[in-house]
Amino acid sequence: MKIGVDLISGESPIEELIEGCVDALRVDQEIEIVVIGKGDVYRPLLQDKKYSHFQKEISRISILQASEVITMDDDPIAAIRQKKDFSMVKGLQAHKNGEIQAFFSPGNTGALVLASALQLGRVRGIKKPALVALLPKLDGGSNVFLDVGASAECEVGDLVKFAVMGETYAKCTFGINKPKIGLLNIGEEEHKGNELYKATYKRLSEMNINFVGNIEGKHLFSEKADVIVCDGNIGNICLKTIEGTASTINKILKQSIKSSLSAMLSLPLYKGALKGLKEALDPEKHGGVPLLGVNGNVFKGHGSSGREAIKVGILAAAKAVRTDILGKINREMQELHLV
Amino acid sequence: MKIGVDLISGESPIEELIEGCVDALRVDQEIEIVVIGKGDVYRPLLQDKKYSHFQKEISRISILQASEVITMDDDPIAAIRQKKDFSMVKGLQAHKNGEIQAFFSPGNTGALVLASALQLGRVRGIKKPALVALLPKLDGGSNVFLDVGASAECEVGDLVKFAVMGETYAKCTFGINKPKIGLLNIGEEEHKGNELYKATYKRLSEMNINFVGNIEGKHLFSEKADVIVCDGNIGNICLKTIEGTASTINKILKQSIKSSLSAMLSLPLYKGALKGLKEALDPEKHGGVPLLGVNGNVFKGHGSSGREAIKVGILAAAKAVRTDILGKINREMQELHLV
Repeated sequence: MKIGVDLISGESPIEELIEGCVDALRVDQEIEIVVIGKGDVYRPLLQDKKYSHFQKEISRISILQASEVITMDDDPIAAIRQKKDFSMVKGLQAHKNGEIQAFFSPGNTGALVLASALQLGRVRGIKKPALVALLPKLDGGSNVFLDVGASAECEVGDLVKFAVMGETYAKCTFGINKPKIGLLNIGEEEHKGNELYKATYKRLSEMNINFVGNIEGKHLFSEKADVIVCDGNIGNICLKTIEGTASTINKILKQSIKSSLSAMLSLPLYKGALKGLKEALDPEKHGGVPLLGVNGNVFKGHGSSGREAIKVGILAAAKAVRTDILGKINREMQELHLV
Repeated sequence: MKIGVDLISGESPIEELIEGCVDALRVDQEIEIVVIGKGDVYRPLLQDKKYSHFQKEISRISILQASEVITMDDDPIAAIRQKKDFSMVKGLQAHKNGEIQAFFSPGNTGALVLASALQLGRVRGIKKPALVALLPKLDGGSNVFLDVGASAECEVGDLVKFAVMGETYAKCTFGINKPKIGLLNIGEEEHKGNELYKATYKRLSEMNINFVGNIEGKHLFSEKADVIVCDGNIGNICLKTIEGTASTINKILKQSIKSSLSAMLSLPLYKGALKGLKEALDPEKHGGVPLLGVNGNVFKGHGSSGREAIKVGILAAAKAVRTDILGKINREMQELHLV
């Protein structure tokens, strides 16, 4: 199995990104990696003597040339059309042609969503793709939260399909037999929320899935659901609200700690706890999350993904291929008569 | 100035609620309080000898009889129509008749929004009311965040008027001269978000207000804006997401602390910090927040409001009357040609 990794879009030092690839290759003996980016830079680096201990892993890395990335000033649509050597387009084309079985990129989210839909097309019956975030459950495990920013404008049918895709992802990735599906809303009662969410509630409750009703924002980290569905507008705002709240708490606690001598003494311990906390609660820091609904295995990593995040992202992509999430979404769509 | 306080809707012990009223009366010598609820219970209590030190304050409390509240099983619309002795309706009628100049209730939000709109009507030109939450800024002060749950279904015109109301509230309450107005959205760029938010961005940027553009969820606690506008669906979900994140962090930190002996030693300090933190970040714990857009001074407290929250809520309501927020919203609506 070959996984394409868009290294040129990453913000971390290239050595770190390559080490992440090597780590993944050591853990998973069955994969090969196609790194996408500047061949003239990567080729000598891969042969550097500092990697001499990892020649076995390095031999399972090949290079797909791409020299262009999307910048802050780029319009994603124009960039995808005009940049002939754009890493995402090159990687996704290779995926479409069967040269790689999954594509992982730590690049611009909007561009990845758009390029994936354009290059790979969408799963039959699905109009809008959805980006997943994994929210840590308090007693371990993760909640599958989608859409967190691929599709800001949604209709009832889109949200229903997000539920189906999230359910399939939870089954394949976490081995949950009958994942509990919740709808993010302003209250638990059926009549809560706006027209879109009320109509979605009704549709979900009529389907042959384990729909557990509305989930409030305060229960995003709870056991109430395994999959939490919303539109990309709300999902993205929620995700960033989590990030902002966690970072604010971090700052407030640091100030409190600094104002007390005895607390200062145990500062290293709290720093450790705070760091773990930040990582646990910042979903964008997780290795890789899938873009569901496109006709391929596309994974998105955070722009600042380092060694560990790259490794985890590649392994998540490999797992998606192995568990055939794409095929299972297709079958689930048919079984639920959504195609 | 008379402030009506719906004591019967509070969940805290009645003694605590009355003490909150007494505290407010001690701080603000110019107000009188009309407590709304069970006269037969409150009357003997107010004459209890434990309050003998506060006879001056107690003499400024009168009672408006109401015996009914809204329960979890009640449909708000039916309750408002059918319960003849419902505290909110009684209080709001007194407000409409000029017997009280403001009404504060720690009761059911949905019922308060509905009853206020029905009894008082809306400000001219405003279709939907908005509930405010105050989010703490890291360096002190508060961000005015609205709507957090009064109006789940909004149009461009509604969001524009939320901006005007929030601006007026920030001016009157925090003395900010030209409050910075932000629109909660999934990215900072003008083209971000769904159609409703893109159109609202355009309208706000054409108005004679200090519009600073889109604000992301991660900047809800920042200095970027003084007023942050969104629809009640997103606002409520965000607010509860903040609550859920803060409570999850609290639990994770407690676990980390318990697992370390040296951290345990400074536990009381952290507990203090965590408690302050929780209060700072849980906007519903704040004393009282206004329901803007209805034709009166209506303040909402958290159901679990205790002594301090009741006091702060009453003082906030008194300040709203004194600074004539209602009149200023009316004038601002005219000046911006929104009526």
